[in-house]
Amino acid sequence: MQDRGLQQAFHPRSIAIVGVSRTEGQSPPGYTGLRFLRHLRDANFEGRIYPINPKADVVAGLKAYPSLASVPEHVDYVIVTVPAQAVPGVLQDCVAAGALDVLVCTAGFGETGEEEGTRLDGVIREIALKGGLRLVGPNSLGYHVPSARMVMYMETSSTPGPVAFVSQSGGICQMYTMQGPSQGIFFSKVISYGNALVMDSPDFLEYLATDPETDIICMYIEGVRDGGKFRQMVAQLTPEKPVVIWKAGLTPWGSRAAATHTGSITGDREVWDSFFRQTGAIRVKSVSEMADVTMTLQRLRPLRRARVALWGGGGGNIVTAGDTCAEEGLEVPPLSEETTRKLMEFMPLVNQIVVNPIDGISAFIDTSLLRRGIETLAADPNIDVIIMYLPAGMATRWPAEQVARIMEVISELSHQAPSGKQIVAAVRDEGKFGAAESFAHSLREADITTYDSLTRASRALARFAGYHRFVGQLPGGSGR
Amino acid sequence: MQDRGLQQAFHPRSIAIVGVSRTEGQSPPGYTGLRFLRHLRDANFEGRIYPINPKADVVAGLKAYPSLASVPEHVDYVIVTVPAQAVPGVLQDCVAAGALDVLVCTAGFGETGEEEGTRLDGVIREIALKGGLRLVGPNSLGYHVPSARMVMYMETSSTPGPVAFVSQSGGICQMYTMQGPSQGIFFSKVISYGNALVMDSPDFLEYLATDPETDIICMYIEGVRDGGKFRQMVAQLTPEKPVVIWKAGLTPWGSRAAATHTGSITGDREVWDSFFRQTGAIRVKSVSEMADVTMTLQRLRPLRRARVALWGGGGGNIVTAGDTCAEEGLEVPPLSEETTRKLMEFMPLVNQIVVNPIDGISAFIDTSLLRRGIETLAADPNIDVIIMYLPAGMATRWPAEQVARIMEVISELSHQAPSGKQIVAAVRDEGKFGAAESFAHSLREADITTYDSLTRASRALARFAGYHRFVGQLPGGSGR
Repeated sequence: MQDRGLQQAFHPRSIAIVGVSRTEGQSPPGYTGLRFLRHLRDANFEGRIYPINPKADVVAGLKAYPSLASVPEHVDYVIVTVPAQAVPGVLQDCVAAGALDVLVCTAGFGETGEEEGTRLDGVIREIALKGGLRLVGPNSLGYHVPSARMVMYMETSSTPGPVAFVSQSGGICQMYTMQGPSQGIFFSKVISYGNALVMDSPDFLEYLATDPETDIICMYIEGVRDGGKFRQMVAQLTPEKPVVIWKAGLTPWGSRAAATHTGSITGDREVWDSFFRQTGAIRVKSVSEMADVTMTLQRLRPLRRARVALWGGGGGNIVTAGDTCAEEGLEVPPLSEETTRKLMEFMPLVNQIVVNPIDGISAFIDTSLLRRGIETLAADPNIDVIIMYLPAGMATRWPAEQVARIMEVISELSHQAPSGKQIVAAVRDEGKFGAAESFAHSLREADITTYDSLTRASRALARFAGYHRFVGQLPGGSGR
Repeated sequence: MQDRGLQQAFHPRSIAIVGVSRTEGQSPPGYTGLRFLRHLRDANFEGRIYPINPKADVVAGLKAYPSLASVPEHVDYVIVTVPAQAVPGVLQDCVAAGALDVLVCTAGFGETGEEEGTRLDGVIREIALKGGLRLVGPNSLGYHVPSARMVMYMETSSTPGPVAFVSQSGGICQMYTMQGPSQGIFFSKVISYGNALVMDSPDFLEYLATDPETDIICMYIEGVRDGGKFRQMVAQLTPEKPVVIWKAGLTPWGSRAAATHTGSITGDREVWDSFFRQTGAIRVKSVSEMADVTMTLQRLRPLRRARVALWGGGGGNIVTAGDTCAEEGLEVPPLSEETTRKLMEFMPLVNQIVVNPIDGISAFIDTSLLRRGIETLAADPNIDVIIMYLPAGMATRWPAEQVARIMEVISELSHQAPSGKQIVAAVRDEGKFGAAESFAHSLREADITTYDSLTRASRALARFAGYHRFVGQLPGGSGR
């Protein structure tokens, strides 16, 4: 049998689950073999599933096998959920059966900080290296591949997309796969790799570099064993496939927790600062920031500068909007004399003056003004992108037809891109329960690139432009 | 007639609205006399309302008067919404009628940056000073007093409470009054004072210092004319009534917008940094942060340190939670040996080890463990406050009775305060539409001090402890 490398783990024709009980136990909580099995079946996984349980004939309606050796075909991917002590034995069975792709889900290894955990680490590492196992984990959930209907998470979409997520935390995989689709983010591969005892992030990056399903790579990292290789892989990927990284554990409390979570050495802040400067990886600090940057990479054309015209309403909102953009590193330049003159010709203004950010609420009342306003701003040579800063109350307090007209104009112009300029929306939460989230949803339904807040918009746009600036300055680089 | 000072403006027996049309005009948008009138009537304002309109006999069902002079009683508060050019004439009528408390809502004065606006500023300032008018504005919405059913904002509660809000932006008053109640924040006085041409923030602070309705003062400021007086007033107030300030316009773009919004000179960042250090005012940067700090001041007993034990679940969540606390300046100390030993006696742990933050999801499955866990942490001498870090998915994916039991234990223990320690909750948003907001709501309904995210919790607790530390170090100071 030809070994297909990691490809066979991501698109397996057969999966064995070792350590699958007939019923869910009480505690401790966490993933069980049965839960993996049920996720796979609920998602209509396209290959065969082999429960391995010497004490059962049938598990969840599927024929069970006493051991890996008794499975009647080659097993492409083995999920191991037996207790830590029993893992070495199972791995030896994998080697014997030639099943090279193995997920060890079980926790209780080096991350415990105890002698026994460290000893087991040594044992399984040796078996894996000698036997050529591509072992992912331990203490992880392995591979989630929507295009193979190989689903590991609850309440997530199985629609495939161009985003890979490589993460040391299965919980954060769960969050991103749950949150992504609302912002139009769908996944090629989601990789939860836990303690990284054998396969580490550079191995997955190597695969993703040539994965035709993947255009954007997101990562959640606590530590990396081979920093040099990691740096080199990311630097090599970045011009072709942007790499968005949430590096956790760079604070004393985060670092202490990381040692017990994945046994990682989280490293030094300055080393990581220089890593980001030198590789062009895009730095984020939460799932939301990761989603915002990814959405921006998916939807906007490259921008090396993000000089913003911000269109909103309300004096205090405009002042604080200017502050927010400035604090997040977005330029809000003065409008050109011509732009100012033109706007003042047709805009009924509260304070008889136009500055950027623009207090232009009247344009939301008469949408012909809105159209002229956006076109006028787009023609300004100092402006790269226009942010429509929309109060959530619009959707709850204004007449629905009026809001529909506003969304129509913004959606239409954002697709036309007058003077080649891009248009996005940011929602201003006014504190009314649920209003902001639901308005953002409607704007996205109208195919407008929408951020849940101006802070989130500014942060994502600044990072997006920073990425394209970096790539543009590389020798021979042209950006995506 | 005895002049009751500002008291008569906040609790007027009669209000005249000068410049009230029979119907709403088309544009520009913004406040009209008729809108003020309708808000007052809808809220069942307890005094008399006199519409002033020489061309109408009746406005919105109320008898109209041709001029202030024709009103049959003393007018305690005059709302002026006539065009800027007509404002000086109306102010002279106010002086003549002895109506000293006047709101000029109209915009179009110094904030336009034009010669005519500046000239009008001079004219109305002179009339006000000579005539002894306590003029608020121009370009503002004046006073909102729930206890007098004197309501200026839409979709706000008219339940009175101990929080005053003094703001140069009417829009931000609208946001805070709308958002506050969901976090248990209700208002004594909300003061929108716009350009501060005559009455400025120190004048309002002077009143609030002795206002028995007010315990906590929040402010949104763009500029202050008399910085020395302001500093002195805040420093004097701070030990008795905490002052929470959002100072806007300290960035280039915010500052430029502030000049056109309220004509304010926003000042220098270093000057304001030193103002905050010296007065003990609590600095915030959004309505949400203001609400979080205010909620904390209302609900928690004084804390000079906020050494936190954080109880959550999921390895990655615990690592990133540690990072969040560290970045927001909260201490997450190691647990004492005794605490660690006790927890390990009864907690089924994922990774067989206990560090702070605590990966203790199993305690949410068996609430007797939760109770013992919280009590054990509370007994730790290194811990001041316990944060229960709860995933939003609990409320959507877990059995309702189980979630009810968890909330019951947390609510009960937070009221008991075992070992004198305080317990709060922070919701972890997993990205499922609406889930986090709605779970936070349920937790507050269960009378648990709840923050919408761990970032918000950390930020508010760090500022809260900083305030009490400041006050505690004042000569003779003891904190609230």
